Parts: sequence; C-alpha cells; structure tokens
Amino acid sequence: MQLQMWAPIFGVVGFVIALVLYNIVKAQPVGNEKMHEISDDIHAGAMAFLGREYRVLAIFIVLVFALIAIAMNLQTALAFVGGAICSMTCGFIGMKAATRANVRTSEAARAHGQAKALEVSFNGGAVMGLAVASLGLVGVGVAFIFFGGDPETAKYINGFAMGASSIALFARVGGGIYTKAADVGADLVGKVEAGIPEDDPRNPGVIADNVGDCVGDTAGMGADIFESYVGSIIATIAIAAAAGPELLGKLGVGAAVQANAMLLPLALAMVGLVFSLLGIASMKLLKSMDPAKALHYTTFVAAAGFLVAAFIYIRFAHLDNGIFWAILAGTLAGIAIGQVTEYYTAHAPVARIANASKTGPATNIIHGLAVGLESTALPIIIIAIGIFVANYFAGLYGIGIAAVGMLATVGVTMTVDAYGPIADNAGGISEMAGLGPDVRKITDGLDAIGNTTAAIGKGFAIGSAALTALALFSAYATTVGLDSINLINPMVVIGLLIGGALPFFIGALTMTSVGRAAGAMVDEIRRQFRETPGLLEGKEGVKPDSQKCIDISAKAALREMVLPGVVAVVAPVLIGFLLGKEALGGMLAGATLAGVLLALMMSNGGGAWDNAKKYIESGQLEGESKGGEAHAAAVIGDTVGDPFKDTSGPAMNILIKLMSVVSLVIAPLLV
Amino acid sequence: MQLQMWAPIFGVVGFVIALVLYNIVKAQPVGNEKMHEISDDIHAGAMAFLGREYRVLAIFIVLVFALIAIAMNLQTALAFVGGAICSMTCGFIGMKAATRANVRTSEAARAHGQAKALEVSFNGGAVMGLAVASLGLVGVGVAFIFFGGDPETAKYINGFAMGASSIALFARVGGGIYTKAADVGADLVGKVEAGIPEDDPRNPGVIADNVGDCVGDTAGMGADIFESYVGSIIATIAIAAAAGPELLGKLGVGAAVQANAMLLPLALAMVGLVFSLLGIASMKLLKSMDPAKALHYTTFVAAAGFLVAAFIYIRFAHLDNGIFWAILAGTLAGIAIGQVTEYYTAHAPVARIANASKTGPATNIIHGLAVGLESTALPIIIIAIGIFVANYFAGLYGIGIAAVGMLATVGVTMTVDAYGPIADNAGGISEMAGLGPDVRKITDGLDAIGNTTAAIGKGFAIGSAALTALALFSAYATTVGLDSINLINPMVVIGLLIGGALPFFIGALTMTSVGRAAGAMVDEIRRQFRETPGLLEGKEGVKPDSQKCIDISAKAALREMVLPGVVAVVAPVLIGFLLGKEALGGMLAGATLAGVLLALMMSNGGGAWDNAKKYIESGQLEGESKGGEAHAAAVIGDTVGDPFKDTSGPAMNILIKLMSVVSLVIAPLLV
Repeated sequence: MQLQMWAPIFGVVGFVIALVLYNIVKAQPVGNEKMHEISDDIHAGAMAFLGREYRVLAIFIVLVFALIAIAMNLQTALAFVGGAICSMTCGFIGMKAATRANVRTSEAARAHGQAKALEVSFNGGAVMGLAVASLGLVGVGVAFIFFGGDPETAKYINGFAMGASSIALFARVGGGIYTKAADVGADLVGKVEAGIPEDDPRNPGVIADNVGDCVGDTAGMGADIFESYVGSIIATIAIAAAAGPELLGKLGVGAAVQANAMLLPLALAMVGLVFSLLGIASMKLLKSMDPAKALHYTTFVAAAGFLVAAFIYIRFAHLDNGIFWAILAGTLAGIAIGQVTEYYTAHAPVARIANASKTGPATNIIHGLAVGLESTALPIIIIAIGIFVANYFAGLYGIGIAAVGMLATVGVTMTVDAYGPIADNAGGISEMAGLGPDVRKITDGLDAIGNTTAAIGKGFAIGSAALTALALFSAYATTVGLDSINLINPMVVIGLLIGGALPFFIGALTMTSVGRAAGAMVDEIRRQFRETPGLLEGKEGVKPDSQKCIDISAKAALREMVLPGVVAVVAPVLIGFLLGKEALGGMLAGATLAGVLLALMMSNGGGAWDNAKKYIESGQLEGESKGGEAHAAAVIGDTVGDPFKDTSGPAMNILIKLMSVVSLVIAPLLV
Repeated sequence: MQLQMWAPIFGVVGFVIALVLYNIVKAQPVGNEKMHEISDDIHAGAMAFLGREYRVLAIFIVLVFALIAIAMNLQTALAFVGGAICSMTCGFIGMKAATRANVRTSEAARAHGQAKALEVSFNGGAVMGLAVASLGLVGVGVAFIFFGGDPETAKYINGFAMGASSIALFARVGGGIYTKAADVGADLVGKVEAGIPEDDPRNPGVIADNVGDCVGDTAGMGADIFESYVGSIIATIAIAAAAGPELLGKLGVGAAVQANAMLLPLALAMVGLVFSLLGIASMKLLKSMDPAKALHYTTFVAAAGFLVAAFIYIRFAHLDNGIFWAILAGTLAGIAIGQVTEYYTAHAPVARIANASKTGPATNIIHGLAVGLESTALPIIIIAIGIFVANYFAGLYGIGIAAVGMLATVGVTMTVDAYGPIADNAGGISEMAGLGPDVRKITDGLDAIGNTTAAIGKGFAIGSAALTALALFSAYATTVGLDSINLINPMVVIGLLIGGALPFFIGALTMTSVGRAAGAMVDEIRRQFRETPGLLEGKEGVKPDSQKCIDISAKAALREMVLPGVVAVVAPVLIGFLLGKEALGGMLAGATLAGVLLALMMSNGGGAWDNAKKYIESGQLEGESKGGEAHAAAVIGDTVGDPFKDTSGPAMNILIKLMSVVSLVIAPLLV
C-alpha cells in the first residue's frame, strides 16, 4: 500500500482516540448542583454561539464554493469545503470537550487534588489537540490521494488550506471579539468600579467571560493552529510540485525525488501524530510532578521522538540529509520564539511595566507599548536565522518543510494550549460555586501555568504562522511562474505598501469592535447593578441576567467578524487582477511583514501588561499591593492589553496565512 | 553662467533675507520685566541644550568623517560634513528666532491684538523656513558645482544628504525625548495630581516644557524637513546620474537629457524658493483675515506659482511633459496626506475617542490605538497612487522628482510648521506672566491653529519622508547596479524582516526613554512640591527650581539619543557587507514600510488623543467637562500620545531616510 493511503487511516485512528478521550473526560464526576448549573450555562452559551457562528459561516462557504467552482474548477471548490468542514469540526469537538472538562477539573481538584485536576484538564485539551492533528491528516491525506499523485493536479489541494484559513479568520476574530468584550466589560465594572473579585457570581458578565475563554482561546486558537498545520503541509507539497530541476537536485537524486519530496510533509505529519500520542500518554506518568514541568516534558518527549524518526525516514526515502537540518531549524525556531515570548511576558520587562505603574496609568501604558515594540526584534531575528538555515540546506522547499517540522507535533502542543482555558474556566467555576480557598489554590495554580503556556503558545502560533505564510508565499511565486518579484518595480512597491497597511487596518477594525462591544457591556452591567435590587449586596436568590451579556458579546462578534474576513479574502483577488501577479507578490510580502510585527507587538505587549498586574497583585512590587494606585494603573494596562493579545494580535496570524493561501489558490488564473 | 552657479546665489540671497527677518523680529518689543525674564529662561535653556547636543554631535561627525575618508574618499567625507553643518546651522538659527519670537508674540498680542501677533510669530517661523530652503540650496548647489557635472562624480553629493540625515536623527530623537519628558512629567504632576493649570508658573517643569517645544518641534522638525528636502534633490540627481538609456528615453530627447534631468531638481528648488518668498511676503496682506485661512493661503500662493513655473521650465529645458505630471502628483499627494491627517486629528475619530473616555482610560486608549492603526490606510493609498502616477509618467525618476515637487516650496511650509511652537510658547509665556484672559484668548487661538498646522505638517513630513526614502531606495538600487531585488530570494526576505523590525525597535527605545525620563521628572516635581514650602500655595517670592527639571530633560535626551542614531547608521552597513547588496535592498524596503506605517499610526493616534482631550475641555462631549472623569481619562490618553506623536513617530521619518542614504553612500563599495 502506498504511503499516502496510510495518512487518512492514521488520522481516523487519532480521531477515534480523541473521541475516546472525550468520553473518558465526560465520565468524570461533575460535582454538586451549583457546579452543574454553572457549567451548563457556560456549555449552553458556548455551543449556542458556535451554532450561530456556523450558520453565518455556512452562507460564506456556499458563496465561496460557488465562486471557486465557476471561476476555477469543482475540485478546488470541493477541497475548500472539505477544509472548512474539518476546521469547524475541530472547533466543535474541542469546545464540547473544553466545556465538559472545566467543571470536572474543579471537581477533581476538590475531591482528589492537583494531580487528578491536571489530568482531567490535560485530557480535555488533548481532545482538541488530537482532533486538530488527525482531522488535518485525514483531510490533506484524502486530498493528496485524489490529487497529489501528479504535480499538475496537486494545486487542487490548495483549496483545502483556503477552507481551513477562511474558517480560522472568522473563528479567531469572532471568538476574540466575543471573549474580550465580555472580559473587558466585566472587569471594568466588576473589578474597577464595584470592587468585587474576578469571577464573582454577582457580576452579570462573568458567564459571558467564561464562555468567551472557550470561544476565543479554544475554538479560535484551534482553528488558527489547524490552519498553520495544513497550510504548511500544503505549501510544501505545492513547492515540491512546482519545483524546477535546480531545486530538485538539491533535495536528492533519482527519478522519484519529486514524488518523495511531495510526500514528505504528509509522512512527517503522520510521524508527528504518533509521537504526539506518545507525548499525551506520557502525562499518565508525569501528572504527579510539578505541573509546569509535566506539561513541558510532554512536548519535549514528542518533539525528540519526532526528530529522530524524521531523520531516519529521510534517509530511507532517499532524500537529501539537508532537509533534516531544515526541519530541525524549524523545530528549534519554534521553541526559541516560545522562550522569547516567555521572557517578555514573565521576566524583567514585566517588572519594568509594574514599576512604571507607580507613576500612573499613562506611564504603565507607555512602557507596555515599548515592551511590545521591543519584543518584535528577537523573534524576527530567530525567524530570519531559521529561514537562512532552511534555505541554505534545502532552498525554498526548506522553508516549507521547516514550518512542517515546527508543526508536526501539533497534537501535543495544541493539547497544552487548549489546557489553559480549561484551567482558567475551572478557576472561575470554583469561585462562582464557592468551593473554598483550598480548591481555588489548586485551580489558580493550574491557571497560572496556563497563562505561561498560553504565552508560549501564542509565540509559537506567530512563529509558525510567519513560516507558513512565507512557505505559502514561496509556493505562490513558484506556482504563478515568477522568477522574480522585483522590489525595484514600482508596482511591487505599491503592492508592498498596500499589503503592509492591511494588518494595521484589520487591527483597527478589531480593536474598535472590542472597544465598542465592551462599552455596550459596561453599560449593561452598570444597568443591572443599578436596577436589580439586592444584586450587588449578594442577596439570597437574586441572580444577574447573564443571558443579556452573552447576547451582547455574541451579536457583536457575529456582526464585526464579517468585514475583516471579507477584506482578507477580497484584497488579494483585487490586487492580483488589477495590478498583476508581481504586485500581488509584493502585497503578500508587505502583509506578512507588517502582520508578524503587529502580532508580536500585540501578543507580547498584552501578555506583559497582564502579568504586570499579577506581579503587583502577588506583592512583588515594593510598597504596592492589590487595590493600591499602582495596581489600579496596572488594571487599566491589562484591559488595554486584552484586545491586543486575544483579538487583534491573533487575527494577524490568520490574516497573513489567509491572504497567502487565497493568492495560491487563484495563482493558476494569474499565470 | 550655468544654471547651477545660480543655486548658491539664490540660496545666499534667501539666507540674507532670513537674517533680515530675524533682526526684524528681534527689534519688536519684549514686554514687561516678567516676560523678559521668562523668555530669557527659555532662550537660555534652549540654547544651552543645543550647545551640549552639538558638542556630542561634533564627536560623531569627526568619527564618521574619518571613517568615510578612509573607507571611501575625501570628497564624500567633506560633503558629509557640509550637510551636517548646514543642518546644524538651520537648527541654531531657527531656535534663536523661535525663542526671540515667542515673547514678542505675547507682547504683540497684548499691545496690538491678533493680526500683529500672527505677523510676529509667522515671521519667527519664516526665519527657520527660509534657513532650511536656502541653506539646502547653498549646500546642494555647491556640491553640484563641484561634483554634479559628471555622472561619475555625482555620487560624492550623497555624502551631503548623509550629513543632513545623521544630524536630523539625533536632533529629532534628542529633541523629542527632551520635550516629552518635560511635557509628560509636568502634566502628570501639575495637571493630574496637583490640579493646577497648564503652564502654571508654580510648576517646576513648565520652563523645561517650553524649552522642549522649541528643541523638539522647531529644531527637530527643521532638521527632519531639511533632510527630506536635500534628500529628495540628491536622490533624484543620483537616479538621473545612474539612469540607463531606457529611462533617459522616457525623460526627453537629445544628448543633454541626462544633464538636464540631473539639473532639474536643483532648478525646481530655486523656483520653489522664489515662490516661497512670495508666499511669505503675502502674509503682509493676509494677516488681518482669519489666521487659519491666512496660513493656508500663503502655502497655496507658493504652491500654485511653483507649479506654473515648473511647467514652463520643463518645456524650456527640453524635458518630457510627463515629468511635470509626476511633480504634480507629488505636490497633490502632499496636500492630500495633510488633509487625511487633519481628518483623523480633528473630526469624527476624535469624537469617537472622546466618547470612549466616558467608560474610562482603558477604552480611551483602546479607541485611540484603533484610530492610529486605522489612519495608516488612506495615506498609504495616496502614496501608492502618487508612486503609480509618477512612475507611469517618468519611471523611477518620477518618484524622485515627485518628492522634490512635494518639497520645493519648503520655505513656506516649514514657516507654517515653525509658527506652531512659537504660538504655543507665546501662550505659555502669557499664562506665566499673568497677561490676563484677553491676551490669553489671542494666543490660545493662534496656538490652536498651530496644533492643526502641526498635525498637517506631520502628515506632510511623513509623506515626504516616504517618497524621499523610496527615491533614495531607487537611487540605491540603480547606483549599486541591481536590476532586481528579488523577494523570492530568501536573503531579501531576511533583509525585509530585519528592516521591518528596526522601526519597532527604535520605537521601543524612544518610548522607553521618554517613559523613564518622565518618571524621573515626576519624582523631581513631586519632591519640589513636597519640600519647597509655599510653592504650591503660590506664596509671593517662592520660585520653583526650573533648572533641575531642565537638567533632567537635557541629560536624558543626550544620553538616550545615541543608541538609536548609532543603530540607524550601523545597521545598513552591517547588512550590506554581511548579507550582500540585495539583502540590503530588502532591508530598506522593510524599514521604509514599517517605518511609514508606525509613523502614521503614532503621529495620528497621538494627535487624535490630544484633540480628544481638548474636545472634552471645550464642552463638546455631552454631560462632560474639564475636571470630570471622562476628562481625566482623556488626559491619560493624551499623555500616552505625547511620545507617540512627538518622539517615536517623528523618529521613524528620519530613520528610514537615514538608512536609505547611508546605503546610497556605501553603494559604491557594494557594487
């Protein structure tokens, strides 16, 4: 049997394991009546939003399907639908698991302690992690079986990446607006004005905030990573399919080089899935150690095993050893960017922002913006080194395969990412259900680790998006038959300028959306506190109207996600047909550059603001504590950072990939 | 006599007129004893800072002179020193005039009313405007006479642009840090904490703040525009000098085309100076009308006359008519960008930020950042259209000559720019000297117009910097002999990424510098209010120690301006020699793109924040007024916007020009 036949089989097996894990999580005890009720509220809110979001997306999918089928061909259109459905399925299953695992983590912490709570939340995350890895493999595998045998038809596979990308942008932007409107609104009135704690059940916005964590951080992040994963595989296939003799000569010898090079990304994804499963399984042994270390080790186990296997496979496939070094460069770059992100969101820069809070919110914001701006430099240098090494050893193909190397063990890295919002939710449920300080201490501990893994995960997401976008860019250039995208040509400069402005424009749209929705949320929560007698006093039996807040977030998210999504899809088509294929290349380069820079600035700046607040809360800033003036300034900084790190920043990752993949799909029309 | 011989003569005549104007301003009455004293303090502080700054710069100039002389040739090194000295002379004379004109504007407002006050402040600005235009003409003219006759030796002229650029970066960054450390510090303690008005004489930081206006907005802005002016002329000469037969064929017919094309930018600068003088003189007739209109008309008079004369000249010089359309595109693009800037800093976006202030500082900041991000889109499209038209009619040469067209009437545009800080200072002096509400009303009115002209001027500065940088980039590419800077080449992508990260990094450095220096200023002002008995109460004879605050600003500025300057000069040299000339081309493109985007975002965002505060102060936000909660939030936004719009944002303009010009200078070594 040919190797590609195994890809969907591996994927289906992985997916079955994900479903089994989901049932294991669901079989855990839920806890008392109150916990049940809260968790049901969150579950219902999240699934209701997903249902509404998917109905909007269905219209988009049908429209784009028709457009592609008419303007191009049915094969690409079908692949597009396949990518969209796979991405949506990941989001659906991951959300189901997250909203089941959250309350069960609280209960595990209450009944059994930290190790069991870690296990439950990790398994909840693993459902998403495995769904992403295995559905990617099923989808790309099936597409490859149909179209991958011939470099001529391989281009149809690109539709799959476009489907995944489109869904990702809507999911990320919609989820990001949902979660931050709720978060900012609930914090501004609850914490700042009314002075009640985070996640206090009196606050009408708290359920929406918890729903938002699932909607934004789980479903949004999952769609983002799914897109990078399939995007990197498909870009590499496309580069290999369009490779000329010079590049192929670099990749190996013999007639089968091109076929083997096209197959390699798929093979690596299979190997990566196997070692991801091993990494996830290793948590059984690791769960009793320090949770932060346990989480790290699961990813290291997977990455190390993957690299060894990849080295052996490349040998047996008669491919050049240099390809392995490109893969290694990608893997190491991913880890290094994660480390830089951790530095900027946990160490000296955070202390600098905290210290600046002493002179008020203005200096807090100035220093936070400075940290965000500064934090772009090292990751860019790391990406540059990664490109240099990958290109040195394996040409343009190296850039694609380096991205695949970064993403192959996505099963476990996504698991760790998805663990974070579950732990966060578990903390919220423990607080709302009044489970007491002992339980709260465990869930807070897991949540804090989740914040670190989230920061690292965000760095990883940006790094992989950058490399994937560059791989897609290379695939575009080779597919469209350009030997040169010449910066001396003013049309390319025009493309570059317009491309660069797009991330700024999308950033503006998403920031404004959050600001506006959060303002509406503030008004509603203020109104309830004012008009509902006994609510703020915590009178027995008086409950806030959480549904109203959920509705504000959901409506804002669905309304405001449309424009950015449409802009991202339409812009490359317009530029490509109006200004030509070379200008479109310039636009992709400009968008990728500005998008990566803004993503880094916003994610890292936002994370640093968040942790500067926590730094003061934990008493690390001399003479200051929770509730003091410096803390008040830091809360304002954190609130500004929220849409930075969870809405606009992450949207950039997807924007640049989506624009590249749309260009790749329309490339045959531009030749 | 050859045309180029006239350039220095025109320049000298212009310069003499500037000196005459200076003496006219100086001959105006100073007012009472108190005004005399305050103005002397500001004058002394400003000139002392300039002296210290120039001593630091002298070391830099000597070092770079030696390096260029050794690594390249004496001619370029001498031109470099010439450019540096001309730029410094502009700064010196402009500052002298500004610090003389400020108090005399107050006195004119007191004794004669608005028309006279407008005239004095305008004439003060005209000294700077004419100094920039005429010294540029003298310097480039002399260099052209020596080296411009032969395309081979024309490259030595580039050194002049590099000298001007280097000084500009230090002046802008140093001046920007100086002024914003003082401004932010004085505002945070005076307005926010102590609740005393702006420019209150009890505030120890007020003199430093007024000195800062001159140091940053006059000397810094002058150096910036001087650099664009000579940079655009020199880039166009370089493009013409390196032009191949294809480009020359587009520019005209006959053997003299290349010589005429090389001469054209110089000729346009002469024409521009003449019409600038006419525009400035027209103020004599216009001064009694609405001041905002009068200022606009002076620039329109100059621009219209210039365009007509340029059209005629191009006919007579046997150059292609297309060149005129490129010039027109540049001029119109400059005006259009100014209009967009005005929109974002004065209309709906400002109301949006003001409205968001109702829900606190966090939403104010979120919306302000969104406005900044959004405001990048239209100017980028305008620049893109400008490039398209210029290139369509005159190829790469068109881009250079469009920039010259934008900048040729710099004499009058710079006058209007330099008028702003003088009016601002006059307001401060009127407040400190207690000249009463009638005088204050006149100076406030002139100051408000100054804010609008400053916003438009900033947009113009960014637009001209972008076009100049692109012209320099084209000049670099042609000089270094590259037919293609290919974005498919990973080395170019690496250059692009690193270049893009540099503006973010410099932005971080400058923001941090302001944050840190402002923090020190806050501590010092708090200390004086605490430790000086009777100071806050305004006890007779108790004066603040303004010198301490001046010293904090000056030391911070001188210390913190060095690293950004060195990075900007060293980065292109490193990349050029390590990664090659094509990667350096990529770096310039990346830096220009990211630099222009950040400059727009920061300048416009900062301006919008500033005016949102004023919008609330003037009672335009329903239910809110000065001193209320929304106003407090808006003051925080304004404080964040200060370093954005006056330090980091303007630094971007110069960064991108300086990096391009350094690359152009070292181009012969990279061939």
